[in-house]
Amino acid sequence: MRATLMYGAGDVRVEQVPDPVIERPTDALVRITASCVCGSDLWPYASMKPEGGPTLMGHEFIGVVEDAGPEVTTLARGDLVVAPFAVSDGTCVFCREGLHTSCADPQAGFWTNASGQAEAIRVPLADGTLVKLPVEADSALVPSLLTLADVFGTGHHAALTGGVSPRTRVTVIGDGAVGLLAVLAARRLGAERIILMGRHKARTDLGREFGATDVVSARGEEGIEAVRELTGGHGTHVVVEAVGTMPAYRQALGVVRPGGVISRVGIPQYEDAPIGFGSLFLRNIRLAGGPAPVRAYIEELMPDILNGSIEPGKVFDTTIGLDAVPVAYQDMAARKSLKVLVKP
Amino acid sequence: MRATLMYGAGDVRVEQVPDPVIERPTDALVRITASCVCGSDLWPYASMKPEGGPTLMGHEFIGVVEDAGPEVTTLARGDLVVAPFAVSDGTCVFCREGLHTSCADPQAGFWTNASGQAEAIRVPLADGTLVKLPVEADSALVPSLLTLADVFGTGHHAALTGGVSPRTRVTVIGDGAVGLLAVLAARRLGAERIILMGRHKARTDLGREFGATDVVSARGEEGIEAVRELTGGHGTHVVVEAVGTMPAYRQALGVVRPGGVISRVGIPQYEDAPIGFGSLFLRNIRLAGGPAPVRAYIEELMPDILNGSIEPGKVFDTTIGLDAVPVAYQDMAARKSLKVLVKP
Repeated sequence: MRATLMYGAGDVRVEQVPDPVIERPTDALVRITASCVCGSDLWPYASMKPEGGPTLMGHEFIGVVEDAGPEVTTLARGDLVVAPFAVSDGTCVFCREGLHTSCADPQAGFWTNASGQAEAIRVPLADGTLVKLPVEADSALVPSLLTLADVFGTGHHAALTGGVSPRTRVTVIGDGAVGLLAVLAARRLGAERIILMGRHKARTDLGREFGATDVVSARGEEGIEAVRELTGGHGTHVVVEAVGTMPAYRQALGVVRPGGVISRVGIPQYEDAPIGFGSLFLRNIRLAGGPAPVRAYIEELMPDILNGSIEPGKVFDTTIGLDAVPVAYQDMAARKSLKVLVKP
Repeated sequence: MRATLMYGAGDVRVEQVPDPVIERPTDALVRITASCVCGSDLWPYASMKPEGGPTLMGHEFIGVVEDAGPEVTTLARGDLVVAPFAVSDGTCVFCREGLHTSCADPQAGFWTNASGQAEAIRVPLADGTLVKLPVEADSALVPSLLTLADVFGTGHHAALTGGVSPRTRVTVIGDGAVGLLAVLAARRLGAERIILMGRHKARTDLGREFGATDVVSARGEEGIEAVRELTGGHGTHVVVEAVGTMPAYRQALGVVRPGGVISRVGIPQYEDAPIGFGSLFLRNIRLAGGPAPVRAYIEELMPDILNGSIEPGKVFDTTIGLDAVPVAYQDMAARKSLKVLVKP
């Protein structure tokens, strides 16, 4: 089959690879009908050493079950399914607590060297990982349902662990797909005011459509000043940090209100950061977030997509075929595309 | 009057100073009947430069209102009162949210150069700051009521912001007064299991009396291993860090369960610390805590002291007169005394 391989920074190719097969009795084989490129794919695209490659790419997809191992009980051939960006068994103590990203099964974990941007994929722990979709593969709802695999669930995680409620004001730092869907998630949870910090007008316009009440395009000290002016000098209760860089973290420290929460869903590109007396402690500021256990959220979020009350799939501004995936990486890295949908 | 002055590291003296007087219409003058030395007083006792001194010491006390400015409406001469370790007006937006340590009034804030370890003290914003006690100054309940000024409220803050509930297991790092009272607070909130990490047997014995179900005396990697063995390999949902040093923070990272909370109430003696992918992010570990808004907790905690169901005052293992305060600093710094009660 054809699949996307990353050979190193800036070097993505679509090539023939062996077809995936059922290897364990809990596996399913899925024929992919829609997938996409993730903002997190851009980190290795910027920095991967050639010695590490090539590696199969892609961890967000919708597809049709083509075959299943003998121990798979909840899925049948022909089912349309969505896959979260982490494999989980759904039965361990962490899955039962809703923290599927910490699933204790040895086969669980983030997809690595997995063929999500390809024609087909082997899915381990299929009963725990995959969720059946009540639509056809060509449904107009597919783009929105595909966001349940990662970006909408991640935005929801940010809002949820930040403690968004109808009484809270929220700042979202970052106008990528996750930031914009954190806006939508915060709006869905009732936030009274949502300030989106981003510089790319087409994206912040979509942010306003998703529920942002204010947009601040300035960064750094100037951006912090602007948010403080909008909030009576104090900042907001919840700050979603959807970038992952140290400047974004410092911006979060500047706009969070005493007693508030910084909820991080951008993968931190730093290890040490200020959390002492002057940064977090004195003002009782909390830190939350992490990789979203999106599997835990699919059942809650899907009905609002099915009934049309939200349309997170609007983050896809480009649709391509599998052969064009290398261009999708280029365009997303250059911020020409917000998020690219791939139809193999 | 006589008051405690710190001249520099290791140099505490009791000397004559001018009597405090009412300076503003919202002040009260309090004749101190019980006060104490705080673990946080030991930080300047270890490191204060002489150029910074001398400074008046003491921020936890009970006393009798001797005089009050014309705008004080809730207190009368003769009332016995307890003072939290931060001054607050009780009316600003942060006080109404229960975050009295971030009170917006210009007179609010932590006591500095204040005569808590003395014969008398001027209390700013008396209506907001002081809480009337329904006992006499010589009541046997005074030691326990005095812990409402700081250490019990701080232990409660740690447990509360850590999210302790009847379903949680808790590790408390540190067997000082705050750590031990975090044990009592966690027990009071129903924690099913409380592991106390401390090396001083008399203190950990009191910890057991307060509700610790397990004691781990090992530190560092060995201590982390011991807690993990007690918890099925995963650590606990809540970790109270009641020390403030980097080794204590690293110990907290080692014993916290994925999805759990590290609640810090020891003043951090560091600014930067690991919070990136490998430390907090991957496992969705949250950070909470800060200076406790103890004023917010007094009404909730006091009834359990008055009805005798808890006795936080057991942390006082020594009682002295005012002239012996310099010895109290020595003994607490040398860990000979856990916490010293001062009867001026």
